[in-house]
Amino acid sequence: MFWDKYPEFAKEMNDFEDYFQSTLTSSNQLIKNEIKRLAEAGGKRIRPALLILVSHLGEHDKERIWPMAASIEMIHLATLIHDDVIDKSPLRRGVETTHQRLSNNTAIFMGDYLFALAMEVILNEFGDQKIEDVLMRQIKNTIQNIKKLCEGEVSQFQRQFVKVPSFREYLDSLNKKTALLFKASATMGAAFSGMSKYQVHKMGKLGHNMGMAFQLIDDLFDFQDKNSELGKPQNNDFTQGIYTLPIIYVYNNIEHKKNIEKYLKEPEKNTKKIKEIVYDQGGIDYTKELANRYIDKAKKIISTYSDNKYGEIIKWTVEKIVNRNF
Amino acid sequence: MFWDKYPEFAKEMNDFEDYFQSTLTSSNQLIKNEIKRLAEAGGKRIRPALLILVSHLGEHDKERIWPMAASIEMIHLATLIHDDVIDKSPLRRGVETTHQRLSNNTAIFMGDYLFALAMEVILNEFGDQKIEDVLMRQIKNTIQNIKKLCEGEVSQFQRQFVKVPSFREYLDSLNKKTALLFKASATMGAAFSGMSKYQVHKMGKLGHNMGMAFQLIDDLFDFQDKNSELGKPQNNDFTQGIYTLPIIYVYNNIEHKKNIEKYLKEPEKNTKKIKEIVYDQGGIDYTKELANRYIDKAKKIISTYSDNKYGEIIKWTVEKIVNRNF
Repeated sequence: MFWDKYPEFAKEMNDFEDYFQSTLTSSNQLIKNEIKRLAEAGGKRIRPALLILVSHLGEHDKERIWPMAASIEMIHLATLIHDDVIDKSPLRRGVETTHQRLSNNTAIFMGDYLFALAMEVILNEFGDQKIEDVLMRQIKNTIQNIKKLCEGEVSQFQRQFVKVPSFREYLDSLNKKTALLFKASATMGAAFSGMSKYQVHKMGKLGHNMGMAFQLIDDLFDFQDKNSELGKPQNNDFTQGIYTLPIIYVYNNIEHKKNIEKYLKEPEKNTKKIKEIVYDQGGIDYTKELANRYIDKAKKIISTYSDNKYGEIIKWTVEKIVNRNF
Repeated sequence: MFWDKYPEFAKEMNDFEDYFQSTLTSSNQLIKNEIKRLAEAGGKRIRPALLILVSHLGEHDKERIWPMAASIEMIHLATLIHDDVIDKSPLRRGVETTHQRLSNNTAIFMGDYLFALAMEVILNEFGDQKIEDVLMRQIKNTIQNIKKLCEGEVSQFQRQFVKVPSFREYLDSLNKKTALLFKASATMGAAFSGMSKYQVHKMGKLGHNMGMAFQLIDDLFDFQDKNSELGKPQNNDFTQGIYTLPIIYVYNNIEHKKNIEKYLKEPEKNTKKIKEIVYDQGGIDYTKELANRYIDKAKKIISTYSDNKYGEIIKWTVEKIVNRNF
């Protein structure tokens, strides 16, 4: 198991998993079974884990924290389901995707269902009591992040096959695609455990840096034939017209721009050549370096909590991002 | 214009339209333009109109009401966009659909974006003040209705081409597909204008009955070659394996069950025969009758407000549902 090094937290994440599964209900049996099937296929629950871990740095209250952690994972799951419809991916985490097994109809509306379920779980926490301003702000931020995530997906589509993004556009897409939800996880964990405004801000930075590194490593996997381990089909981003940092880096080298531009016109045919030039001209190294820079920033932030056992687990998790197989 | 008979309210809906359009923003220009394009294509805004009309029966406060009305329309728009992706419809309200004009990617994520935007607009109304219990309950109900709407769509898909639904299943699908959002509109209008619990309940019934009638009439259009007027392609539900009341009625007639069953096996080939048998055996008349029963129930509820000018407009709107071309 992922958290074996920390048995107490492993137990907590196990219990959370049971809770999470129990929230995945629907009066429609097909939806219920299918959400459960997807959820049981795994995933490290890295976002809820981050939320829960951060909450332990403050006054952890399971009753408030778990629903938020479950909601974040539901939102994540919803976007994966919609992503897979769009990419026509047959597999995710080694199991058949919903649109593949059932239909686009079920996949699209199940994603919508999960968004609504996430909202419901969040709002259910505020039965009779007033939602404190600081928490309401976090909830609104999370909703705004869903909006930005959608905007990011559409922007990526606008560039697809048309344009190698600038470095800035690429960072923006990393942020919207992944870092914002990591940031939301960390800030919600902090705010819902009564941490100070400054600490909430700091934890947001922690989540942001983790998310940026996470997505950079994801983009590296695309060049490392590691996808089979991840239960994804090997279907390179660049053959889909999506250009990530390893390519952008080489593209910005005047000497190699023409070459890679030529190869990208027939990406299927030139897959091997594209990978070669990207490796040889430092695209992989540069991407790793940048990922490590984000990792270092995240570690620096969490180092303030080095005497706290949850601070230690967060540090371990941050380091794990670089050598992950999840 | 639709509300010309009531100039004051027509003006109000005009102003609301400007407000609604102004809420449809995105930092992504493509999303922004595309949502606006769809919104400008029309639609009678019947759900927000119902919400606004009902609110005038209580203590109408535009500042509270318009955001709720806009959110309901956003949710409706989001489901239409996702519906059109699934049905591969090229046209809606006479203009190209998003997936057709741009891509499935944009359409799916734009729908998601609109869901998030709707949540944001709702929650933004509760900046610093506590959300009153009764209002929070309405917001949660609306979110639950989104869940049910998704469940209804999936259920419909499960039956598609497989099973003529029972009368009960059909009513359930009318409810989930349409009546729940009408009900949410009416109850939100009532609750957010300070009406009593009993009145909120009554207005919910009003919305429910209007929604049921609305969808029954929609299902009738499918047999009346009226779709071209609605800017939809004529693509009968039954050729898509979706069986509505006119068919269900005939199917439950022992004498004709075998016949219609046979025709439905090759619906494209038998379109004319299916329509004939449905007309001749009373499927159309029965559906109209049922729609009228819901209309009568709605009228009875609103008759309590017959001395109120907004009560009168609601009554007119209810009657309009039967002879609508929207």
